[in-house]
Amino acid sequence: MTQVISLAGARHKPAGAPYADALNDLASQLADDMAAVNALIVDRMGSQVPLIPQLAGHIVAAGGKRLRPLLTLACAKLYHYTGPRARKLAACVEFIHTATLLHDDVVDESQLRRGGPSANALFGNTASVLVGDFLFSRAFQLMVEDGSLEVLRILSNASAVIAEGEVLQLSTTQNIAATDNDYLNVIRAKTAELFAAACRIGAVITDRPEHEQQTLYDFGLNLGMAFQMIDDVLDYSAEQARLGKTVGDDFAEGKMTLPIIVALQRGTEPERDFWRRTLEKRDQHAGDLAAAQAILQRHNALETVAKRAQHYATTARHLLDIFPHSPLKQTLQNIAEFTVQRGA
Amino acid sequence: MTQVISLAGARHKPAGAPYADALNDLASQLADDMAAVNALIVDRMGSQVPLIPQLAGHIVAAGGKRLRPLLTLACAKLYHYTGPRARKLAACVEFIHTATLLHDDVVDESQLRRGGPSANALFGNTASVLVGDFLFSRAFQLMVEDGSLEVLRILSNASAVIAEGEVLQLSTTQNIAATDNDYLNVIRAKTAELFAAACRIGAVITDRPEHEQQTLYDFGLNLGMAFQMIDDVLDYSAEQARLGKTVGDDFAEGKMTLPIIVALQRGTEPERDFWRRTLEKRDQHAGDLAAAQAILQRHNALETVAKRAQHYATTARHLLDIFPHSPLKQTLQNIAEFTVQRGA
Repeated sequence: MTQVISLAGARHKPAGAPYADALNDLASQLADDMAAVNALIVDRMGSQVPLIPQLAGHIVAAGGKRLRPLLTLACAKLYHYTGPRARKLAACVEFIHTATLLHDDVVDESQLRRGGPSANALFGNTASVLVGDFLFSRAFQLMVEDGSLEVLRILSNASAVIAEGEVLQLSTTQNIAATDNDYLNVIRAKTAELFAAACRIGAVITDRPEHEQQTLYDFGLNLGMAFQMIDDVLDYSAEQARLGKTVGDDFAEGKMTLPIIVALQRGTEPERDFWRRTLEKRDQHAGDLAAAQAILQRHNALETVAKRAQHYATTARHLLDIFPHSPLKQTLQNIAEFTVQRGA
Repeated sequence: MTQVISLAGARHKPAGAPYADALNDLASQLADDMAAVNALIVDRMGSQVPLIPQLAGHIVAAGGKRLRPLLTLACAKLYHYTGPRARKLAACVEFIHTATLLHDDVVDESQLRRGGPSANALFGNTASVLVGDFLFSRAFQLMVEDGSLEVLRILSNASAVIAEGEVLQLSTTQNIAATDNDYLNVIRAKTAELFAAACRIGAVITDRPEHEQQTLYDFGLNLGMAFQMIDDVLDYSAEQARLGKTVGDDFAEGKMTLPIIVALQRGTEPERDFWRRTLEKRDQHAGDLAAAQAILQRHNALETVAKRAQHYATTARHLLDIFPHSPLKQTLQNIAEFTVQRGA
């Protein structure tokens, strides 16, 4: 826990964005691989049905950080993998992620995704569902081409778990009786499982023994837990709002994220009435989001969740101790360590 | 074409429902297998998230005829297959079909499915999307357990083609410029491809040579084409309405099915204006469905489509000529031949 983190790649950059720096470092170290992955993604989302590449292109071009395929590439490279399989399976992981984003947009009735209009706002729910199905099927076609039943097992399991997590989230939404444990089950399934699978694949295609596969799986799982917890903190962050980023989506949807659960545990009866009205009944008015943020601040809920995220992040970092020192290992550890400062 | 069809199983039953008789014959001949498939379906749609078996159970219990898994079982049995793989893969095929039904309900905004309330009317679009994703993932988990990359290839390809077909259908909906060819591409992809894959699997798991696999694939493809064309005829059938079955869904949704395309080709300018208003603009009023049915009747559109369906059905029947005579072969040929009288 007292290990000193060297900020190798960030030395000459402005302070305050260590996570973004670490992610940029990772993308630079894997630039050739990622260029190939991006080309593969564009190629394989092609179809004779024009709406498919149009819609898929919209969400793929919107970009995101491609964190999941980067993890697959990085974990394979920790074992000095140089073959073509990591790129193909990284594309696969991104297709699964993109499919779930498309279906998640439908689910959440969200109008924004990554700062631009969401695919379903532009193309309709219907097209989002169907193109998501197409990308999901494409992912499995890519896996079949790769030819490893073990990879197919890992990613079909992950896909089932993700869907279960999304349904579980649906069951806990607008339910202020939801517990810490409910929340942890949801985010492990809907987010952390794919991080974990993406990492494990790096050890599978390099034929590493089960315990090393498990270590990379655990690295991804812990990183994914920290990542999602911070995502859920940022959705209430005043600083995010100041930077012009969208906040309040989870509040509007009545999602029972950990900041709310913490605030409920520490709250007064009038506060519980407030959450019942705004989250359980989704009876929301102007000023309610600000009131929610004030309650969270009163109970230090965001800081508490960030501290709990830090625990997962640190665990993730330590799991990589089995690898000899390398710039790539250091960068992955930086990503884990600084996930908690994401968005800062 | 002049081959005499023996109505073996239907001899002592009331005339007029030869398709239903043939399907019942098939189900009786495969009763043990289907009981096992149904048990497997119930077992594998289980989840610790209660909403999943609730919703999946609703659509699976609604039943349908289980035609696709019956085809997998029957085609394997044509080769005297007796092992456990056919049952597992039949369940797989039904999961893929159920997942597409769930997503199709979202897409079509339909409130009814198989005569009862559709899953999305009861549980919401959101849950239908996510439980569909879960069943789809489960299908791939079952295939991984089965362990054949060839089966995985066939069903991941079919899944991608189905999604493409659904998106293509979306692109042609409310477009009165849609052609015969557009329509045939849509139904081949969204319906016939899964029939074809379901049948091919019977020859794959019995290690039959490629040309026999292809024959069963073609049998399923032609059967599926006929099946969907008749489905689209029945949606405008006065007889169906008289029997208390839902008609007019395709009309309400502005779907460009073959009866409409035929009527447009043969139509007058005032009729084209009618279709523009009702299908392209979906500006529909009381009496419009009856008016649409009258136009279809004036141009013999339903009979024309049924005749075209008969061509596919007869092709399907003849494709089974490679097999020696058996009650099972005869029943499959009856199903193909009488598909066109379905709903009569």
